[in-house]
This record gives sequence, C-alpha cells and structure tokens, in this order.
Amino acid sequence: MMEFIPPATRFVALPDGFKLKRGGTLSGARMAYETVGRLNAARSNAVLILTGLSPDAHVCAHEQHPAPGWWEGMVGHGKPVDTDRWFVVCVNSLGSCKGSTGPASVDPATGRCYGPDFPALSIEDLADAAAHVVRALGIEQLAVVVGASMGGMTALSLVARHPGLARHMINLSGAVHAQPFAIALRALQREMIQSDPQWQEGRYDAASVPISGMVAARKLGLLSYRAPDDWSRRFGRERLDAALASAAGMPAMDFAVEGYLACHAQRFVRAFDPNAYLALSRAIDRFDLGDEAAGDADAALRRLQLDRALVMGVDSDFLFPLSQQRQVAQGLQEGGVGVTYRAVSSLAGHDAFLADVAQFGPPIAAFLSDVASGARSAEAASDVGQASLTASSSVSSPSASLAASTASSVASSTACSTAIATAPSTASSTASSTAIATAPSMASSTAIAPVPSMAASTAPSTASSTAPSMAAITVTPL
Amino acid sequence: MMEFIPPATRFVALPDGFKLKRGGTLSGARMAYETVGRLNAARSNAVLILTGLSPDAHVCAHEQHPAPGWWEGMVGHGKPVDTDRWFVVCVNSLGSCKGSTGPASVDPATGRCYGPDFPALSIEDLADAAAHVVRALGIEQLAVVVGASMGGMTALSLVARHPGLARHMINLSGAVHAQPFAIALRALQREMIQSDPQWQEGRYDAASVPISGMVAARKLGLLSYRAPDDWSRRFGRERLDAALASAAGMPAMDFAVEGYLACHAQRFVRAFDPNAYLALSRAIDRFDLGDEAAGDADAALRRLQLDRALVMGVDSDFLFPLSQQRQVAQGLQEGGVGVTYRAVSSLAGHDAFLADVAQFGPPIAAFLSDVASGARSAEAASDVGQASLTASSSVSSPSASLAASTASSVASSTACSTAIATAPSTASSTASSTAIATAPSMASSTAIAPVPSMAASTAPSTASSTAPSMAAITVTPL
Repeated sequence: MMEFIPPATRFVALPDGFKLKRGGTLSGARMAYETVGRLNAARSNAVLILTGLSPDAHVCAHEQHPAPGWWEGMVGHGKPVDTDRWFVVCVNSLGSCKGSTGPASVDPATGRCYGPDFPALSIEDLADAAAHVVRALGIEQLAVVVGASMGGMTALSLVARHPGLARHMINLSGAVHAQPFAIALRALQREMIQSDPQWQEGRYDAASVPISGMVAARKLGLLSYRAPDDWSRRFGRERLDAALASAAGMPAMDFAVEGYLACHAQRFVRAFDPNAYLALSRAIDRFDLGDEAAGDADAALRRLQLDRALVMGVDSDFLFPLSQQRQVAQGLQEGGVGVTYRAVSSLAGHDAFLADVAQFGPPIAAFLSDVASGARSAEAASDVGQASLTASSSVSSPSASLAASTASSVASSTACSTAIATAPSTASSTASSTAIATAPSMASSTAIAPVPSMAASTAPSTASSTAPSMAAITVTPL
Repeated sequence: MMEFIPPATRFVALPDGFKLKRGGTLSGARMAYETVGRLNAARSNAVLILTGLSPDAHVCAHEQHPAPGWWEGMVGHGKPVDTDRWFVVCVNSLGSCKGSTGPASVDPATGRCYGPDFPALSIEDLADAAAHVVRALGIEQLAVVVGASMGGMTALSLVARHPGLARHMINLSGAVHAQPFAIALRALQREMIQSDPQWQEGRYDAASVPISGMVAARKLGLLSYRAPDDWSRRFGRERLDAALASAAGMPAMDFAVEGYLACHAQRFVRAFDPNAYLALSRAIDRFDLGDEAAGDADAALRRLQLDRALVMGVDSDFLFPLSQQRQVAQGLQEGGVGVTYRAVSSLAGHDAFLADVAQFGPPIAAFLSDVASGARSAEAASDVGQASLTASSSVSSPSASLAASTASSVASSTACSTAIATAPSTASSTASSTAIATAPSMASSTAIAPVPSMAASTAPSTASSTAPSMAAITVTPL
C-alpha cells in the first residue's frame, strides 16, 4: 500500500457518497491536482490534462515544485501548451496512488488501506471525478480538455457525460475502447502481479510488495510502448557486461536491452502501488464509450458536444493503433465537430506523445493557437466556434528528440544512473563495456529536446483560424 | 521433468562425448526423429525439416502414427512437401523434451534428470546433432534442408558448419540472429517461469511443475506470434461468459481473447518441459551466424554453400521481422546462391508458416518442383544446379485458411474443447453465450484447409526450372 504524492499537490474533496459506475460508493474521497498558469478573469482559459495510467498531477515544473514534470517538453512557459496563456489543471486519476483516492488510500470506514477491497473502478468514474475538480475550481467551461492514452479515453468519457463542460478536445493515442491484443497484454500484466507469491490476494504490506510481478509487468509495458524497430535502433545486439550485471544483482542477462528494461521497471516499482495498477489496468480494458449510446461507440462519438478537436495517433502504436484514432476523428466529424486528424509516423509507438514532442508539439500548439483566436473572436462575434481544421497526416521526420527522451510514462527526474546499463548501439562502445553507464536514451525528462517556439510551431498548421464553416475531414488512408 | 515422445519416434545415438559449442559434452545422448516417404536408390531425395522451439518430430500423419502432425497442411501425400516424391526426415531438436536428449532426459552419469544442470545449449549444437541424424541414415547429401523460425536459424547453422551436406535450403521466418524486441520478450518469458515459486531453481518435480509461470510465458508467446489486427479480427470485444469462466476455474477474465490464450497455454504446459523451454529460448537469443565469420553475419551468409534457396518472411512478423529474411536472401545471393525471396502479406505474423499454408504452400511446392527438375537434369548434365529463381513478393490474399488453423506451434490434434471459450466475433453469438464452445479458430490442425494440388500450386512460380544461369535477386522493397 504505497502512495507517492508530489510536494506541490493540492486536493479537492469529492462529494461524500461519490457513486461509481459499477455500483460502489466512496466516502471521504479526494482528488489530487496541480495547476500552472493563471485563470483569467473570464475563466475562459482553462486546460484540463488527463493522464495515462501512471503519471501524477505534476505535469511540468512550476514555482511550487520546480522539478521536471512528466510532460515537461509539452507544458510550460513557451511550450506548446503555454502556461503563460493557459491555466493548466492536471489531475491525478481517481484510483491512482499519487494523491487521489484509490486502493492505496485509507478507507475511512475501516482505518485501513482499501487494498483489494477498493470498489471496481471505471474510466467513467475517473471522468466524473475530474469534472468535479474542474467545477470545484470555479470553472464552468474548459477551453480545452487534453487526454492521452487512458487519458484519451477519460476525455471522451468526460465530454460524453458532462456536455458543455469542454469546448475543445485534444485526444492523443486514445480510443473508444481497447482491442483484444492490448486487452490480452494487460491481462497478462495483471496475471504476472497476481501470481507473485508476495501478492497475497492484494493484502501485501509495505515490507512485502509483489515486486517481481510488478517488475515483469512493467517490462512488458515498456516493451509494448515502442515499435520493435525502435528497440533494434537503440540496442541492436549490444551485450551487457556479465560481471557488472551480476554485481548489480542482475544475473542471467546477456543483452543491453534486458538491462535497460530491468532498470526502468525497478524504478517504476518504487513509484506505483500494485493494487492501484490493477484497478486502472482493468478499468481501461472494460471501458467502452459505446456504453453511453446503447453499445454503439460511433453513435456515442457523434453525440459528443464540442466545437473542435485535435485527434492524433502514431503509425507504430499497436496498443492504441491508428485505426482507433481515425475512428474517433471520423465519429466526431460525423457529429459536426471540426476535427484535425494527425497520423504521426514515428518509431516511438504508444510512447510518442511523451517521447516525440517534436512531432506532437507543433500540431498541439497550432490547435491551441486557433482555439485562442476563436476565443478572442467569440468576444466580438457570437459563434465562430465551428471553424474547423482539415485533416492531415504529418510526414515522417528523423526525430532527434527520440533518443533524448524517456521511454516511460512515469514522471521522474531520476535517471537510471545507479543501475547497470550499457549505452545503445549509437553510443560509444567504450562506455558500454567499461562502466556503469547511463545511456542517452535513459536520461531524464529534462533532456527532452527543446521544442520550437510557439511562433515556429504554429507554422505547420494548414487550418485557417478564421474559416467560418466546417470543412470536411479527409482522413488519411493508412 | 517431463518428456513427451510421440509413438512413432525413432532414435539415433549421438557419439559419446558429443561436444557442445559452449564447452559441455553429452554422453549417451540420442536424437529423436521420424521419417515419411522413401529414400530413393540414389539417396538423392532426402528433405530434412528442422523445427521451431516447441514441435516434436511428428511433422505429418503416416502409417506408424496416423494422427495429424504439427505441419500437416504442408507435408504429406499430395501436399507442398509431397512425401510421394520426397523422403522427409524431421528431427526433434537437441535439448527439447520430445525424445531428443535435453534437460528433461536422464543424465546417465547420475541416474537423475539433468534439469538445470544440462550444459548450456546453442543452436549450433542443434545443427550438429541434426547433421549426425542425416549421416546416420546413410544420406551423404540432402536435397533440401527446411527450417522455420528457430529451425531457420538451425538450418543456416547446419549449412555453415556442414558444407555440402545440403544442396538447397528453404528458410522460413528465420534470421541470422535475434533482435532486441524478440530478445526482451523471450527474456521476459523466462523470467515468468523462473519467478514462479514452483520453479525451485529448476529442481521442480512432476508433482510441482511451475505451471503458472509456463502459462504466462506461453500466453505472451501466443500473443506475439500474431499481428494485433489478427486478434481484433478474431475476437473484437467479445465477452467471456463470467459464470462459465468461473465454473471452469478461470476467474477475473472478461474477454474471449483471455479465455482463448488461457486454454491454449494450459495445453502447452501439459506438453513441454520448463527447463527444456528455457534452454532452447536462451539458445535462440544467443545464436549469431556471425560467429562463423568473426562476428560478421553477412560474411557468414556469403560463405554458405548451396545451389539454391527459398527465403520467405511475413510482413506482420515482429519477432523475426521481414528485414531479417531480406538480409538472409541478400547475403546468400551475394555469395552466389540462386535465391527466391518471398514477402508474404498476412496477419498471421510469425505463425504464418503454420497458419497460412495457402500462401506458404505454393512457393514451397514450386521451389521443390524446380529442385526435382534440377535433380533430374543433373542425371543427364553435370552441373545445372546454379539455376536460380528471381525474387518476388506475393500479394496479399484473403486467407480463409487462417481462421481454420491453430495459433500454436504445438503439435496436437486435441482442440481446446474442454475449456471455456467463446466463438470469435465471426461465429454466432448463440454459441458464445450459451455453451462451452470450441471456436472455429481453436480447432485442431485437422481443420486446416486443404491445400491446392501440386499441379495447381506450382503455377505461381515465376522461375524457369531450365534457366541455366544465375538471375540477380530483386529484393522486394518494404
């Protein structure tokens, strides 16, 4: 039972008796969040960020907590999500272990941690709890809701269940529901944790956490976040120094890629509660936006009330494959939402929204710039909100930022500098064979390449922010 | 310690003191094999089949053992590898648990099973042991050596280490060495087994096999053998009947794909020894054909002595990706071998050579037909063996055989009929909701669609069997 709460975390109490979709209720529950930037007088510049499974609410550095956040390259002063303009609210998901109530929290009814007795959690509950945070901050309408991965599901759910709460949405590598390959992978991750003898049906204590199960589950997660070719590019058949690996308690490893995964998985285990992981993992698998429309996910998409949306995915993502983002874009479009759809070509797979800010940043910056323009126009004219963007597919670019970014969605500024690791094959062979080295690809998120300035990053936008009518989406064929 | 030996298995003793690449030696070791068809008087029609990690030597039904073999659709009377013409020898890999000596065998020095004390195994040892079987059968030169997956590695090693033993090679979804994504997956599979409390450092007994670790490892294997889209096509978000699943001892499963994997993994666990699995899995990761040429795999390929080779791979295979088969084809071609390279478009991924006989069969039949023609010519003229085939890429075809084939490389005629399973989304919803049903995709290998006759299947060949000179390979760009 482990909670990991960043120092600048703020809290909002959820209403007592907060009802969960699958029948449970929570008493004395709370939501953890951080804010960056200032809410303007009109309260019209709020951006809500919903996270993937593992991050906390510390999305970027700010005065109260200057350590880098989990999306440092994307959010902050002068970044694509520019906190000089936007009031950014990032919530820690309900059920997580980073401050919001979840299995790692104390159940006020018993005085003990919920553990496996935490009621069954749904993505809809995460959406409802996040909506509560927004309203508790005095925000009637978000300018933009942003969600990636599980956060993309949560964003869809929030828009469906709280019509009018957000005017615009940025949905990155999200989906209306999971597909069987991803479901099976996650089921296997849960099986790894639950078959660890320290699991004890979820009643482990801090002294006997199911670490080996968590490590294995995280390794599989890390592997699945990137395209196979990316692992080849980074590690090839680079060997791990057997003597050094053994000295660090990592026997029976031959290859650098094994050491890399072990290092990152160990770090994760020290920052996430197993019961929380299981609850969120299962919530992802069970989520279906179609539940909002008698099982028809496309109908649910068509009902979503938004002015505009940016939908992005990655061609090498096999957990949330591109066909799923195309489905989201098409459904929104058919419902009358102005949609920009971007298919990113990248080896970074499902991790690309974190790892490949060079490709994700500019479209996000352009979209927000257009939103801002529209917001200004709205002060003069009553309804230009339907201005829409044409779909386009970004071209592949050699992405220098890949090598410098983290593979993991865990926010941490601590590089794997204490573990055995060899440099990827692009690094010098001296480093890999002689030292306990920190490979470039294992550097912390502070090493993410600087993103272009706002002025430069809006250049690629093909949309005109003054376009008065809804342009038809042209979804890029795969 | 479990051996699983088919009833028609025959044995050849390995020379006492059989030396292994990494320094060990074996005493009193044996190789298991089966043969189908008849060796001709000239002893010129022998085809050696080398298997992937898990199959036994029972490649197809024959008089001594009429149950379907693990490659029933490919080998037999009138099949692409036609046993009316060819004398087929299939060996069980050294180190396996299907009759050849391995960790599950009794060590004559101690009278106990080797278990974890079996000496470190290499693909080269598998190749040397298979070569011994060939020679023990009185065959000086194979017409063709065929290897798929791990067997493709073994075939390359055999040709490198035993020059002249084979005139032709069919290499399917093979590689000169593994890439880091596949290495990491296999390392994770081994970790799952070794972290099972019943593992006991490999000293488990028959009453306490590390079943949960083996099941998890096999699930990951099965998942990785197919393209993600294939799982979507077959299962979608089909649910598992919770009550039925629970009654069958499968709690906490929501989706049909989970039940499918559980069923097949359970079957595998009852047919493979964990220590043998670990030994072969590690041998795959460590194999590098470059070891035959001072670390240069391409140089090793260029040295291989063959007349002609057929090299095939699959575009959705991310364990042995197509770029690796292209490398094999190019290296052989540069060394003067006449190469046919076929890139198959299929969702069956690494499993396609088993599952998609419709696409793998015709090129194999055509190649063997050309080999036979060349062999006949050789009786008249001394040297037309260098006749070569041009490379081509097969087009994608809707493959009806996919749904009817097994996902697993385990040879078994027993369908998962006793386990909970729902039909894939193409099956009727009645079947999935009311019964403990055997889905079509879980049917046994007897359900594999009939392959075209030899006459029909040679039609797609673009090569002329009378071409006297070596045509340049034109490797299909990806």
